[in-house]
Amino acid sequence: MDGMIAQGVIVPVPKDPGGGYTHEQHKRNYRAIYLAGQLYSLTGEREYADYARDLLLGYAALYPTLGEHPAKANQYSGRLFWQVLNDAVWLVYSVQGYEAIRGTLAQQERERIDNQVFRKAAEFLSVGSADTFQRIHNHATWATAGVGMTGYLLGDQNLIDIALLGLDKDGKAGFLRQTELLFSPDGYYAEGPYYQRYALMPFMVFADAIDRNDPQRGIWQHRDGILLKALRTTVHLSYNGYFFPLNDALKDKGLKTDELYHGIAIAYGKTRDPSLLSVAEWQGRTVLSQNGRLVAQDLAAGKAKPFQFPSRLLRDGPDGNDGAVAILRQGSGNSGQVLLTKNSSQGMGHGHFDKLSWQYYDNGHEIVTDYGAARFLNIEAKQGGQYLPENTSWAKQTVAHNTLVVDETSHFGGDVTAADKIAPRQLYFSGTPGAQISSGTMVGAYEGVNFTRTMALLDVTGLAQPLVVDVMRAASRNAHQYDLPLHYDGQIMRVGFKARSNITDRPTLGSSSGYQHIWVDAIGQPGAAKDAFVTWLLDGRFYTYRWIPPSDSEAILGESGANDPLFNLRREPMIIQRTSGASSATFASVLEAHGRYDGASEETSASDSQILDITLFRDGGSDILMIETIGHDRTALAISYDSDPAQEHRASIGGMAIRWRGYAAKVDLPREGSTK
Amino acid sequence: MDGMIAQGVIVPVPKDPGGGYTHEQHKRNYRAIYLAGQLYSLTGEREYADYARDLLLGYAALYPTLGEHPAKANQYSGRLFWQVLNDAVWLVYSVQGYEAIRGTLAQQERERIDNQVFRKAAEFLSVGSADTFQRIHNHATWATAGVGMTGYLLGDQNLIDIALLGLDKDGKAGFLRQTELLFSPDGYYAEGPYYQRYALMPFMVFADAIDRNDPQRGIWQHRDGILLKALRTTVHLSYNGYFFPLNDALKDKGLKTDELYHGIAIAYGKTRDPSLLSVAEWQGRTVLSQNGRLVAQDLAAGKAKPFQFPSRLLRDGPDGNDGAVAILRQGSGNSGQVLLTKNSSQGMGHGHFDKLSWQYYDNGHEIVTDYGAARFLNIEAKQGGQYLPENTSWAKQTVAHNTLVVDETSHFGGDVTAADKIAPRQLYFSGTPGAQISSGTMVGAYEGVNFTRTMALLDVTGLAQPLVVDVMRAASRNAHQYDLPLHYDGQIMRVGFKARSNITDRPTLGSSSGYQHIWVDAIGQPGAAKDAFVTWLLDGRFYTYRWIPPSDSEAILGESGANDPLFNLRREPMIIQRTSGASSATFASVLEAHGRYDGASEETSASDSQILDITLFRDGGSDILMIETIGHDRTALAISYDSDPAQEHRASIGGMAIRWRGYAAKVDLPREGSTK
Repeated sequence: MDGMIAQGVIVPVPKDPGGGYTHEQHKRNYRAIYLAGQLYSLTGEREYADYARDLLLGYAALYPTLGEHPAKANQYSGRLFWQVLNDAVWLVYSVQGYEAIRGTLAQQERERIDNQVFRKAAEFLSVGSADTFQRIHNHATWATAGVGMTGYLLGDQNLIDIALLGLDKDGKAGFLRQTELLFSPDGYYAEGPYYQRYALMPFMVFADAIDRNDPQRGIWQHRDGILLKALRTTVHLSYNGYFFPLNDALKDKGLKTDELYHGIAIAYGKTRDPSLLSVAEWQGRTVLSQNGRLVAQDLAAGKAKPFQFPSRLLRDGPDGNDGAVAILRQGSGNSGQVLLTKNSSQGMGHGHFDKLSWQYYDNGHEIVTDYGAARFLNIEAKQGGQYLPENTSWAKQTVAHNTLVVDETSHFGGDVTAADKIAPRQLYFSGTPGAQISSGTMVGAYEGVNFTRTMALLDVTGLAQPLVVDVMRAASRNAHQYDLPLHYDGQIMRVGFKARSNITDRPTLGSSSGYQHIWVDAIGQPGAAKDAFVTWLLDGRFYTYRWIPPSDSEAILGESGANDPLFNLRREPMIIQRTSGASSATFASVLEAHGRYDGASEETSASDSQILDITLFRDGGSDILMIETIGHDRTALAISYDSDPAQEHRASIGGMAIRWRGYAAKVDLPREGSTK
Repeated sequence: MDGMIAQGVIVPVPKDPGGGYTHEQHKRNYRAIYLAGQLYSLTGEREYADYARDLLLGYAALYPTLGEHPAKANQYSGRLFWQVLNDAVWLVYSVQGYEAIRGTLAQQERERIDNQVFRKAAEFLSVGSADTFQRIHNHATWATAGVGMTGYLLGDQNLIDIALLGLDKDGKAGFLRQTELLFSPDGYYAEGPYYQRYALMPFMVFADAIDRNDPQRGIWQHRDGILLKALRTTVHLSYNGYFFPLNDALKDKGLKTDELYHGIAIAYGKTRDPSLLSVAEWQGRTVLSQNGRLVAQDLAAGKAKPFQFPSRLLRDGPDGNDGAVAILRQGSGNSGQVLLTKNSSQGMGHGHFDKLSWQYYDNGHEIVTDYGAARFLNIEAKQGGQYLPENTSWAKQTVAHNTLVVDETSHFGGDVTAADKIAPRQLYFSGTPGAQISSGTMVGAYEGVNFTRTMALLDVTGLAQPLVVDVMRAASRNAHQYDLPLHYDGQIMRVGFKARSNITDRPTLGSSSGYQHIWVDAIGQPGAAKDAFVTWLLDGRFYTYRWIPPSDSEAILGESGANDPLFNLRREPMIIQRTSGASSATFASVLEAHGRYDGASEETSASDSQILDITLFRDGGSDILMIETIGHDRTALAISYDSDPAQEHRASIGGMAIRWRGYAAKVDLPREGSTK
């Protein structure tokens, strides 16, 4: 702040796109207006109020002169920024700073800033940008928050009403409707955690303002306390401080972001929930506001309690009917295990074609990965920091995810409009410790092909770490090529099968739907699950992915980064199971963490897989995947696909009778040769 | 320890190679004998002494029955381990544990362990393995340390004498001679930091024992205190806690290793140098010994002072005449800058063909990288944890390093014997803050081609970060192809020149000398230094490598990992400057760190290079590289190649007269258009 004050007031005429000089300067300015206001509130030092005033007077001179932004990329141009969204963010920050210092101004200055800056900005963002303002979308949340807070500050009831209820004041648009439609009943935001974080900020800040100005509205209680629920859910959607990178997501985003500093402080101010203090402690900072001061004081007073990261099923959709994201956790939120199954809806324009995909976290790292977005935010050399062409050609495509690709085309043919109409269904969820299970099904992503996937995080006798089990069934009346990719992080230690390697000339796997971005390292035809495995090493721990190869199937070892002349992609390895020519396919796989490598102390243990074999049995409509460890302990995941929890099921596997209750269960089996 | 005691005594018959079960169990055992002994010393708890005794009685039964190890890889077989080196390590640890508990034993047990274990092991490692024992090599240091410490413990003067003076007791071999020949006068060990760490352990431990038993020898003062010097130099050869990965080196090794825990504790016990305490504090642990106890007490008493990481020239060779490693530092030892120039000797069998190579560190990371060794220590799937074939075919080859390759062959034709005979010469070194310089020359690495390289770390007006400057001259009478690779870490943001990209089919660059392991991403022909650059991003900071393209030259963007069917290599990017058909070549390049990317706060600055152009002038025998920033500040590095520090030099660059004194200097120039 002091550095900016020393620099003086710099309010340049808008010119540059994201990342450029004028863009960054206007960002610095709105933060400065906000901070100067808060600092004045907390310290009473007039210097801060004066600086915020001078900046705002600069805007009073500039703002009325502005038309469309010269760097606008589409019809949604801002005034100060290349897109209207940034203008709304500018207003949300600036109005808070202005609120804090407005009382210090001479009447003439106040009127000038009121009328030349805030009324004009509120008008531009509401009636002047009606298309955006009326949407049920996070861009509209920023706009309604900015407009509504301006309304409260200027005592303009019309601005308040249109912000809360939409331009027609009928409640079909506006902030309240957004709280009802943008979050699921479990507080999940359809675009995914990255945008959930971003969207949360105006929700929390505006709700705080509504509560202060209109406490009788009970905004925090609205829809069963959805906003506080959404805040907690956002935290749950993280591992080791970073958000799960579902859909368009940059991986650097996590709990240490401005949005979460504000969100946690406001939520703590409202709830005094001591577990939020431990999140703030982990964040290592809070915001300059009365809520932030309270967080700091209560943390210092030792009031923090641990924030719990339970396993959760997060239903998607306004009514919770559009599929779900399941978070299966074991151990600590920072270094334990997370199996994430994404059976949720497309999530609009930022959604990826990744129905029934999954991710795995362990030992502080993303092990089974999601590429996230292909974008380098604010870096001019990378298309001005916007989404790169590879975001569409690779990152959104199905093959860039850990889920089924039929005939080398993406889900819904890569068509967002079609994708937004049909969500997967979550068939089953169990958070039973040691036998956590999530199952979902997708009908309509491919014409005539349905697929159902059951995944589990199991404690298995004979294995030191939880095991991920994956049974994916795809069915059709016609023959297809079925691909099941697994994207992972680490260096290959051992490939269990013989492969033809492309070691002097490396071809691409295909020509469209993302396949053009895959280099083929090697292709093999493992005959049995004993050999069908790849072991890799990441940060001192070994991982083995093992599968039961369908007959006539191939395994492809590849890497992203082909057809990328501008080096826009990260180069990341993958394994693709492929089977062709059959009308249906079953992919049964396990992911095993094992052993330890410590290069500093030169200690290595269990560097090879601790599983001897896996076998899939089908009996009636049930699937039973049996795991046998090298110590000959045997465990099964039995799936009946019958959602009646009371129903008992029986099956015979290799001459052995087993039984279980409900949709799916872990079954401990006797060791081979022993009698029951 | 308690876990091992609960498991009981397990002394298996030797069978497995490195990483295998019996190998790891005997390693666990020697550590347990050592630790149990120390714990008994510190606590007086008899349980520990008894466990060490029982283990040693197990060895008393086993040891006399052993012959050559079944998994031996060459003639240097051990008894307990696949190589004799590990047997020596076993003895060094075990004899220390035994020393601590020997007084607790009944006479019969003591005699049994004395005679059946220690005398036999000492005999095997000395006269039984004379070839190893008599070498001037770190393997011999372990052997002499083990044998000598056994001598002190058993009161066997013969063992002491042969350990100190060699089997013939003439001082031509043995521990004392090793201290004289294995370290340079600056405490540098020719094999490089990785093996320096390893070699240091027996030096420190045995010296400590000599000092306790034969204080009148003054072992710590021997050769001007070389052992303590070597310990400090080892710490200097690290960045952010990890050793510079010169030669065969695994990158996980650093200050948090057993050798350095022991080394720091012993050195502190001897010197009470408070700066060693801050190293121990950073290590976060110390050893279970009287020295370790002292470290812990004095740390707790607040006696630590910061360990300084100055710029240093470390001469190589017993007399300091075999070239040198220069460490040019700026800022903190953990996150500041290090320019490392490797003008040192080959370093025997673990040496790489990398004369006049360099590395750069910044912001906590290795930016310009050295591959280190191709090896996964103790991982059975990777050739039993031994050096991989790719260590020879890639990691040792010249093209895997940041130095000159002539005609696609490695230095000395890749012949270690030839390489060990001729070292580079260090021509100049200056640690002047803001203008640090190192220059070296190599004659004899290629027949008929000499090359001289001057590198500098300069504070340049107009740049926020220090600039690396590199002027490499290669001269011959015949035409050659000259390649200058740069290996780096990060993702490409911008390539300044047009390149033909291999985006659907990726070929290798060559077929031998490491070239077979390089994938070619793209090839271009930049015409001028304004365009001849590549910018990449690593951990929030941008780096631009810029060079003056020789006429008819190419720039190759590549990646390691071709011809690697077993996925033994890491995949790392590189830039190769190539010029063909001329008898001499000059490569002038700069490496610039700039800007900042913070994805969490969405702040980006200076993502593009802050340099406008670089120009090389030759006047008389001098080279002058001029740097012009985008703000039009101009700075030059002037090199006379004249080692007389008093000599004044003049040159004319672009019509401007400049002068400087000595071998090389930074010269600030007037801005273009201004008069001096």
